[in-house]
Amino acid sequence: MLDKIHSEAIWHRINRKTKPQGSLGKLEHVAHKLGLIQSQKSGDAVTKIEINKPTVLVFAGDHGIASEGVSIAPQEVTQQMVQNFLAGGAAINCFCRVSNVDFKVIDAGILQPIDSDSKQLIVQRLGASTENFAQKPAMSKEQVEQGLEFGEKIVKQTIDSGSNLLIFGEMGIGNTSSAAAILAALSRRSVEKCVGLGTGINAQQLRKKRQLVQLGINRCRGQNAQEILRQVGGFEITQMVGAFLAAEKYNTPVIVDGFIASAAAYVAAKMNPSCREYMIFAHQSHESGHKFILQELAATPLFDLSLRLGEGTGGVLAVPMIQAAAEFYNNMASFEDAGVDM
Amino acid sequence: MLDKIHSEAIWHRINRKTKPQGSLGKLEHVAHKLGLIQSQKSGDAVTKIEINKPTVLVFAGDHGIASEGVSIAPQEVTQQMVQNFLAGGAAINCFCRVSNVDFKVIDAGILQPIDSDSKQLIVQRLGASTENFAQKPAMSKEQVEQGLEFGEKIVKQTIDSGSNLLIFGEMGIGNTSSAAAILAALSRRSVEKCVGLGTGINAQQLRKKRQLVQLGINRCRGQNAQEILRQVGGFEITQMVGAFLAAEKYNTPVIVDGFIASAAAYVAAKMNPSCREYMIFAHQSHESGHKFILQELAATPLFDLSLRLGEGTGGVLAVPMIQAAAEFYNNMASFEDAGVDM
Repeated sequence: MLDKIHSEAIWHRINRKTKPQGSLGKLEHVAHKLGLIQSQKSGDAVTKIEINKPTVLVFAGDHGIASEGVSIAPQEVTQQMVQNFLAGGAAINCFCRVSNVDFKVIDAGILQPIDSDSKQLIVQRLGASTENFAQKPAMSKEQVEQGLEFGEKIVKQTIDSGSNLLIFGEMGIGNTSSAAAILAALSRRSVEKCVGLGTGINAQQLRKKRQLVQLGINRCRGQNAQEILRQVGGFEITQMVGAFLAAEKYNTPVIVDGFIASAAAYVAAKMNPSCREYMIFAHQSHESGHKFILQELAATPLFDLSLRLGEGTGGVLAVPMIQAAAEFYNNMASFEDAGVDM
Repeated sequence: MLDKIHSEAIWHRINRKTKPQGSLGKLEHVAHKLGLIQSQKSGDAVTKIEINKPTVLVFAGDHGIASEGVSIAPQEVTQQMVQNFLAGGAAINCFCRVSNVDFKVIDAGILQPIDSDSKQLIVQRLGASTENFAQKPAMSKEQVEQGLEFGEKIVKQTIDSGSNLLIFGEMGIGNTSSAAAILAALSRRSVEKCVGLGTGINAQQLRKKRQLVQLGINRCRGQNAQEILRQVGGFEITQMVGAFLAAEKYNTPVIVDGFIASAAAYVAAKMNPSCREYMIFAHQSHESGHKFILQELAATPLFDLSLRLGEGTGGVLAVPMIQAAAEFYNNMASFEDAGVDM
């Protein structure tokens, strides 16, 4: 839990900047959150927010339910896209280049391992795809526990290598089904509200996707968040849950990407509510269930570009805004400094 | 008017990228617009969008109506903030540093000239503050014509110096009154809808602001956009109108900041509708009238950070998103390139 002892001092600093009070909107809240997090260790309200080596961790995993045709893409596309990431050809690579963000992709359990010695690839597989959650639990208890540990491990490594701002994203054909099932089970909303078009399926595929998701949800009644994760989650989602929990443990802010990343954040916040304080929500995804997760987490995202790609793309687009918040906190003149009469 | 001959070829290129079609949302439309603009001269659908030296032009001017107490800040603050800009201490300077955006401030007619030899200061004054538009026309016809020319001049200079992406912002105590009057007169909406809290006035000041704005609007009935601009506009708004018109003339995309910049864009689009095609709207301002201008211009902004500061701050925050759109257009792999089966 964040210690709030320096909260007022940080607000005072923000409010003395040369601008009408509140006029930098959400960026003021971002600056306040970053200031509060970085004041935990310093013993006073920091006057300089440091942002070092922002790093996006993209968790990739395959889903048994993909064999049912719940996506426009075949299951092999998960691996193909991870290879595209390693070759620098995906949207996430483009956005990382623009904003100078470090990139790592975690093989959390895609169908076939990738033969690569790229330093951007972290292999911590929980298996070769989850089970089809419409038929049986997606994972074993051991896989979930191992996945939470793996998530913590990569967060610790990334922080130890000098990063103090993380972004979590994902890749996994079929994972909007998992995220929708998690949302429905945890929030008790209907599958109609929670299940959306994903990559862009048609009306018939959507009906089928809802029926399949419902089968998984039926096994979740009365279960806690970790068991729901086991029943209908995914390898990449599980490792992201562990990563969100670790962000709090290591006192590090994390930018949350879209629908799938938010579902993992939701599970983490159910397991340990105070980890929510370390999260910055980048964007409102076009995927229909996302707004309900944001409601559950009382989260107001920074922007809405109608993105529905995943990969951490929305999260990385938020990085310059976070840097702008830090820069105004650090270097914008106060009324006194500038001799402005307001 | 933009020639659309390469429109489909540009969409085809975007749609073959390794992502579900449409999944980069508004950024796909940005890429398409930039591609179309840069294809005007090339003779084919460009395969590389160039973004060189993004530059924010902040137009500053004083307003006679400020003497009526329509802002929480005294009129002197316009000059003080311009000095703050030149010293690098304002929010706009912070955001320019983060996104590597060049900055210029134009003295379009602040109360007292500034004694500075900074290369960031462009002096093209139309007077020492406009008249109080609640009592008489804000400007003479000559001032408006000169202002439109000055706006074009600084755009041409900036493009000649190597910039091909412009951002327009402003500073001027009292200028939400001008922008609200322009909106009300051009769109025939009520002052209640168009006039908002600006820097953060109280309910009594808001009533007075609405009454004063109404006095100006009363002289605008049946007038064209340029005459409305003369009656209730401002020096900085007029130069911005000229600048928007020049963006089309010199085939250069321009990012529109918040309420005041959008009011200038609205006037420009009334004077020459095709200049609208060169505009990218950065954000939804917290100022209440902004959404109506966006409606009139059929504009969907990129993000909503609840900003209400002006200075071009929202516009500059959009620059990394524009660069991300260009980068994915230029360097993201196609399905064929990457061997992805979608």
